Amino acid sequence: MKIEYTLLKKEKNSDARLGKLKTNYGTFETPMFMPVGTEATVKTLSVEEIKDVHAGIILANTYHLWLRPGEDIIARAGGLHEFMHYDGPILTDSGGYQVFSLARPKDITEEGVHFKNHLNGDPLLLTPEKSIEIQNKLDSDIAMSFDECIGYPATREYVEKSVERTLRWAKRGLQVHNNPNQSLFGIVQGGEYEDLRRHCVEELVKMDFDGYSIGGTSVGEDKPTMYKMVSYATKYLPSDKVRYLMGVGDPIDIIENVMRGIDLFDCVSPTRLARHGHAYTKYGKINIKNSKYKDDFTPISIDCDCYTCKSKYSKAYLRHLIVANETLGARLLSIHNIRFLIHLTEDLREAIKNDTILAYKEQFIKDYYHT
Amino acid sequence: MKIEYTLLKKEKNSDARLGKLKTNYGTFETPMFMPVGTEATVKTLSVEEIKDVHAGIILANTYHLWLRPGEDIIARAGGLHEFMHYDGPILTDSGGYQVFSLARPKDITEEGVHFKNHLNGDPLLLTPEKSIEIQNKLDSDIAMSFDECIGYPATREYVEKSVERTLRWAKRGLQVHNNPNQSLFGIVQGGEYEDLRRHCVEELVKMDFDGYSIGGTSVGEDKPTMYKMVSYATKYLPSDKVRYLMGVGDPIDIIENVMRGIDLFDCVSPTRLARHGHAYTKYGKINIKNSKYKDDFTPISIDCDCYTCKSKYSKAYLRHLIVANETLGARLLSIHNIRFLIHLTEDLREAIKNDTILAYKEQFIKDYYHT
Repeated sequence: MKIEYTLLKKEKNSDARLGKLKTNYGTFETPMFMPVGTEATVKTLSVEEIKDVHAGIILANTYHLWLRPGEDIIARAGGLHEFMHYDGPILTDSGGYQVFSLARPKDITEEGVHFKNHLNGDPLLLTPEKSIEIQNKLDSDIAMSFDECIGYPATREYVEKSVERTLRWAKRGLQVHNNPNQSLFGIVQGGEYEDLRRHCVEELVKMDFDGYSIGGTSVGEDKPTMYKMVSYATKYLPSDKVRYLMGVGDPIDIIENVMRGIDLFDCVSPTRLARHGHAYTKYGKINIKNSKYKDDFTPISIDCDCYTCKSKYSKAYLRHLIVANETLGARLLSIHNIRFLIHLTEDLREAIKNDTILAYKEQFIKDYYHT
Repeated sequence: MKIEYTLLKKEKNSDARLGKLKTNYGTFETPMFMPVGTEATVKTLSVEEIKDVHAGIILANTYHLWLRPGEDIIARAGGLHEFMHYDGPILTDSGGYQVFSLARPKDITEEGVHFKNHLNGDPLLLTPEKSIEIQNKLDSDIAMSFDECIGYPATREYVEKSVERTLRWAKRGLQVHNNPNQSLFGIVQGGEYEDLRRHCVEELVKMDFDGYSIGGTSVGEDKPTMYKMVSYATKYLPSDKVRYLMGVGDPIDIIENVMRGIDLFDCVSPTRLARHGHAYTKYGKINIKNSKYKDDFTPISIDCDCYTCKSKYSKAYLRHLIVANETLGARLLSIHNIRFLIHLTEDLREAIKNDTILAYKEQFIKDYYHT
């Protein structure tokens, strides 16, 4: 079965949407933040802990799983859900972003991208067909089309050509896609050019994907430019399909982009920040290694309902674990940070229901940035 | 309240004992294997997971906690249980073993041991009084006397002198011990010399400790010598006090030493092996990184009742996690390995009840060593 998106309500004062996404592995409400499980594991968390932070869906990385352990082993395990022992929805990316960020030097041709394996230097070729074939075998609930993720800034000329190639690649992927239980998304590129984003949307919509992603953000542009890029896409996207903004997870970016009509987000930041001892709070990010937390025996946040805060693990203990490089520290902070972002999307859903998203955003910024 | 040890039954064909140890944080049966929580965390495990492997008691390291975060911070948190959020029994070592193993060069004087902080090179002095003072503040359920852990081999002359000093240090520690909720153990040294082990036991018993530890094993000697050392101590120890063999955790050593009258064991091996991808099984240790597990979709052991095996995480997935250096791998294997050793002590308790320990040992060796 393919996914089914239902638009439940539009917020009055913005383009924010409350929706519901039905998958083979459960239904959840949107907006939703997806924790990232690059190597078929959300770093440091068990599958029970993924459920416990109320994650509706998680993301796994096609590029990493292609290299290790290989899509054939995962297929023989019965797919990614079986392999990683996770019975909730899973989305896989196409590998395009990793080729952009990890693999250098690379050579982009019409066929696909030639690059070097970042683990052992072997020459590799990833094509639109190969990306879809891998994702078909991984058997994720939602697959992504293989696209070219363009950096910022890029010339209009380059973006124009690249969008056309991304569209040809989207079509090639669609033609070989062959998994009736997997939905396939098209990816909107087009840089900061409204007409190119619009053109990309219109061409993708003609191909009738099961949902649409917005790519080419978080690649060096400033926040106003990112928001513009998102608006240039959501403005033209059909309202009856789910929309996923790739790689965005800063709290304020989640709020701003929900207000521009985004339904799904993913980002490695909550787990990466955790490993470095940073924790989100309503009043901004804190660095738990700061010596002022040495004898602070209170939890990160008394309002937070995550395992770490509910259990009352103290900042002093968390600081000790992070300083001593004990993995329980990264785990307890990862749980907190992921829950923080998912809780943020819950708050946003509530604000959409009540048409109070403007007030919510104003208060959030006031608290978070101490303004 | 001090601990209360009750001897429930002696096995007919060996010196093995079934016992019960009551502490302020719960009662458990012995023999028991204690997981090690060096830095106030059993590496990679949450406190719920410690309970879930049926650990009766855990060990924390005085030396490490003295250096980081410092005993005063833990005291201000309300003691080690509060600090690490663990409401089960905790035993602390004296720091003597870490001074022996981590701190070089060292200078042993009558006052104590001068050595360098292994983290930053600062000169430090650990004395019997200081060790007890730190442990009093940590507020563990059971504290260890500060002793000199002698290497192997050592001359009779050196061991003689060292035992006398260990006895003087034990008395000095006893005199300053000042925590009515903490029990204090004496440590039996004496190397491989029966008369010295016996002398040490007799002098410690005169001081009337709450329990007795056996030290100076696992320091380079062969297995028969270790078993001899243990027998030379347990032979003379009072039967109404609990006996703890420090730093021993090899499955066959647990069996052999239970048969010599040991009640408590600790060892870092189950978590250390896990981090390197090794798992205990009834049929010997396996290295999960072995390529034959690449597509082995069965759990480590179908008989095992640990979270990892019960949940059916496959060897192929565990291999992938360890190869990809994902901490969930070390966590899942740590849970399995600790549970394996605790399960072994459960089997031994059953064998003591049924007077079948000889047959149990024979079968275990047959399976474990494929003989």
